[in-house]
Amino acid sequence: MRLPNHIGVIPDGNRRWAVDNGMTKDKGYRAGLDPGLELFKLCEKEGIKEITYYGFTVDNTKRPTIQRLAFTTACIDAVNMLSKENAELLVVGNTESPMFPNALIPFTLKRQTFGKGGIKVNFLVNYGWQWDLKEYLSQNEDKKDVLNLIKSRDISRVDLIIRWGGRRRLSGFLPLQSVYSDFYIIEDYWPEFNPEHFYDALKWYDRQDVTLGG
Amino acid sequence: MRLPNHIGVIPDGNRRWAVDNGMTKDKGYRAGLDPGLELFKLCEKEGIKEITYYGFTVDNTKRPTIQRLAFTTACIDAVNMLSKENAELLVVGNTESPMFPNALIPFTLKRQTFGKGGIKVNFLVNYGWQWDLKEYLSQNEDKKDVLNLIKSRDISRVDLIIRWGGRRRLSGFLPLQSVYSDFYIIEDYWPEFNPEHFYDALKWYDRQDVTLGG
Repeated sequence: MRLPNHIGVIPDGNRRWAVDNGMTKDKGYRAGLDPGLELFKLCEKEGIKEITYYGFTVDNTKRPTIQRLAFTTACIDAVNMLSKENAELLVVGNTESPMFPNALIPFTLKRQTFGKGGIKVNFLVNYGWQWDLKEYLSQNEDKKDVLNLIKSRDISRVDLIIRWGGRRRLSGFLPLQSVYSDFYIIEDYWPEFNPEHFYDALKWYDRQDVTLGG
Repeated sequence: MRLPNHIGVIPDGNRRWAVDNGMTKDKGYRAGLDPGLELFKLCEKEGIKEITYYGFTVDNTKRPTIQRLAFTTACIDAVNMLSKENAELLVVGNTESPMFPNALIPFTLKRQTFGKGGIKVNFLVNYGWQWDLKEYLSQNEDKKDVLNLIKSRDISRVDLIIRWGGRRRLSGFLPLQSVYSDFYIIEDYWPEFNPEHFYDALKWYDRQDVTLGG
């Protein structure tokens, strides 16, 4: 089976799930923590080399404060959970804004090995595609690959993007690493995560060709 | 009905269609010309304001010469066909490479009005996402929107991307204008274009929300 090296995860639908289950929208994020850990363990088991979680974006921070605090807390908790696993962890996002949680600053400085290391895990926190690309404006090195000039340059090209919650869009997720990614959409909401989602995505990916335009 | 302002068109599957119909791969491109015009007329009729066709990319030019010549000829013919319509036409791509057809150079200089004008039509010819983004490296203006700093800056944000031929990826199509685009995939090959594809895509788009991350 041809496996993706790098999987991008867009864990959408937390708010819709909360409302469908009689809760206020902010209550949806906490329910996304266990799925995140479960997916990590499945990736580890299957030998995936890199995984990137879409935590929250600069755009997301315009939402009501109660929601913003809830998804920020969920991201802090998620990164702390992952730091108890065997992983090489890096948090990427705009740390210069007050929306960035101080608790995660240490994870942004360089990729750190936890436990025995192994799978690379990137977690996007207060990430913005404009923020990501503006960095390389100041690093004019004409001959280099654009991918080496952006703020998220420690994150490699994404092979497979899995999005929960039925929407068929990137929503600003790593635009340059995603230029050749295959998109797999799951209608279920992220808190409804189920290992079958992951295996269906891998089976589907195995049937795609990789041409990079050639 | 909520209509997209700007539709991106990825007309894929020409080669697979040719092979399925007992022809060599290069013969598939010519069969994509009539669909392109038909789709243009449908967009015009429904009041779409802008349409971008993915002609060919820098990556595509690595294909066998007979195919390269065939898709280049098809792009020249397509642009000439569109220039007989009421449209505001612009060709965007790397004109400094020998892969760019001389016949299309006049269309790259500025957007030109044909007939009574109206719908904006962008045609990507020898387009490369690295080429597109490298331009703005030399235009360091910190406060500006990145979208105003790239080579394809005359092309606005894309609302809906329709891809024929079943693949679920962007393949380098305008990565910055596509950050919030909704993707609609049609399994049929581009030469099998059918107005129903277009109307199904519009109906689907009407059911999506537009949040831009908010």
